[in-house]
Amino acid sequence: MSHAPLQNDTFLRACLRQSTDHTPVWLMRQAGRYLPEYCATRARAGSFMGLATNVDYATEVTLQPLERYALDAAILFSDILTVPDAMGLGLSFAQGEGPKFEKTVRTEADVATLAVPDMDKLRYVFDAVTSIRKALNGRVPLIGFSGSPWTLACYMVEGGGSDDYRAVKSLMYSRPDLMHRILAINADSVATYLNAQIEAGAQAVMVFDSWGGVLADGKFQEFSLAYTRRVLAQLKREHDGVTIPRIVFTKGGGLWLDDMKDLDCEALGLDWTVNLAKARAAVGDSKALQGNIDPNVLFAPPEAIDREVAAVLASFGQPHQGAGTGPTHIFNLGHGISQYTPPENVKVLVDAVHTHSKRIRAQG
Amino acid sequence: MSHAPLQNDTFLRACLRQSTDHTPVWLMRQAGRYLPEYCATRARAGSFMGLATNVDYATEVTLQPLERYALDAAILFSDILTVPDAMGLGLSFAQGEGPKFEKTVRTEADVATLAVPDMDKLRYVFDAVTSIRKALNGRVPLIGFSGSPWTLACYMVEGGGSDDYRAVKSLMYSRPDLMHRILAINADSVATYLNAQIEAGAQAVMVFDSWGGVLADGKFQEFSLAYTRRVLAQLKREHDGVTIPRIVFTKGGGLWLDDMKDLDCEALGLDWTVNLAKARAAVGDSKALQGNIDPNVLFAPPEAIDREVAAVLASFGQPHQGAGTGPTHIFNLGHGISQYTPPENVKVLVDAVHTHSKRIRAQG
Repeated sequence: MSHAPLQNDTFLRACLRQSTDHTPVWLMRQAGRYLPEYCATRARAGSFMGLATNVDYATEVTLQPLERYALDAAILFSDILTVPDAMGLGLSFAQGEGPKFEKTVRTEADVATLAVPDMDKLRYVFDAVTSIRKALNGRVPLIGFSGSPWTLACYMVEGGGSDDYRAVKSLMYSRPDLMHRILAINADSVATYLNAQIEAGAQAVMVFDSWGGVLADGKFQEFSLAYTRRVLAQLKREHDGVTIPRIVFTKGGGLWLDDMKDLDCEALGLDWTVNLAKARAAVGDSKALQGNIDPNVLFAPPEAIDREVAAVLASFGQPHQGAGTGPTHIFNLGHGISQYTPPENVKVLVDAVHTHSKRIRAQG
Repeated sequence: MSHAPLQNDTFLRACLRQSTDHTPVWLMRQAGRYLPEYCATRARAGSFMGLATNVDYATEVTLQPLERYALDAAILFSDILTVPDAMGLGLSFAQGEGPKFEKTVRTEADVATLAVPDMDKLRYVFDAVTSIRKALNGRVPLIGFSGSPWTLACYMVEGGGSDDYRAVKSLMYSRPDLMHRILAINADSVATYLNAQIEAGAQAVMVFDSWGGVLADGKFQEFSLAYTRRVLAQLKREHDGVTIPRIVFTKGGGLWLDDMKDLDCEALGLDWTVNLAKARAAVGDSKALQGNIDPNVLFAPPEAIDREVAAVLASFGQPHQGAGTGPTHIFNLGHGISQYTPPENVKVLVDAVHTHSKRIRAQG
């Protein structure tokens, strides 16, 4: 399939550590409940899964934030938990609550029945990718994504969100063999899933290790990072002759940058606890860095948002300029945008990233 | 007042970086809901605050875990939120829920009415300290504590727990002047409160910065650490000619050890995400380290608990031995013990700390 030529390649260039005339910006969960037009579409769809599984709705909401803001990338509208749903665990979202699975995976018997799901059950995701890519018409690149093997396992074992991760950690400490089995299946499923998104038109992919940061030192490396590595090893490097950048984001993973700097990926996502100058020094010249403003900055007045954006950009410092490759920064939040965010403040943030990052470049 | 001589000074010696024949151990929230005898006392008291404000009950529950386990320290049974309660915010604990304040502090007018509370309103705490110290009769030392200025501010602004800290961070980003005013009052209140606990008999004090880790890099230093420093600067160094060690614990603060290593305190608490060997290298020879096993280890079988305890001790490595001072370790959880913990597993953990830490010392 041939696609329209890309008009704004700033995000992809920054992923590949090539120079850009401004720092690209997109926001985790940028198509979401803080936008009234999203809420209207969701109301028509009836439920979150009704929205995510309908190609037209998924396309519509993915493009909504691009109409309001000068974002440099689009991200597939979907959920990180589509893969365990396709494994038969029965995902649902009650109104105003987090995700819930009908079945949990806690026993040897539960684990024995797990397998890489038939990708036909995830056809709605790949169809949405193709539809969105077409609707974007080359405006900005499209990012595909999945939860990390460990993060999927958290939900599969807990059956939903958790504030102490008691079930999943009990299993990990008591039966590490079962946990490794779950994670291996998850890793192979995630790799297959992301490759299919790439085939369908995703121009970059991101692995969300949302719950890697709840693990103890040592356990993170063994139960999360090792399986992210297993995913990365299986991912397509390019599609149609174009490199597909891979981004890994571990929320709360700032302490383990030393372990992550050798990951076979192009960019690392960082949350707001991380100092970008220190991260740049720790990671060296091997990865683009993505992040990391506190999403709560968006509740402040415009002048405060502008000031905090400038501070994050200054903390990264001067990005690579000119030919070749070097340190680059992709601006993002350190976590998904809050549903309570005033939409007009997002415009202030996005515009501030563009203005200040051009000014920093001009200062050489 | 004269007190019985201390029979087990392992904890205090380790705080002062002096050698001990084993690694001392105590557990955050060691007197708590996982113990049936605690639940029985709480039922008699009628409510959490009924328990905390009654000297006899507070004494009884503080000593309960010492009857079961060979713990090397006792910690005052109280709550981190007694200070804002004494400021008039009206603390309550609904059954099965977290703390709630009747009043919140969000506006300029709210902040204008805040002041360091009359310590007479906290008399019940100081009376409990004296009563517990007497009941301990020199068995182990007694630790007093408070929430940090920032952590108290989180609850005061949010009015209770939070999962996004939206209210407190909105205030911080929008009106940093008001936030600084709250934090200055909190710091002076906490210092006065801890000094009164020391006068009443506390032999060490700990500042719980439970929510420091939710702050962005830069904001942690400005809004949490600076005010912990303000507390420490006002604390008594000794009482009755004996040094009173001061411990600072920032949950999620592992990335900022570099900023914390120069704090004017004797020990730093660490959560389970921190590698103790790296922390020891980062902090150098200036502080004892306290922590940091994942509380969820206590849901595993005895052999797994034993193995994980040994791994945490090995990660710290050989502590200082002989005369003078050097690196020391105080074993603890990386966070409060879960209410669902099987009490028999706590015995396995405490005994494993003693056994393995003696073995490590014997290996020289």
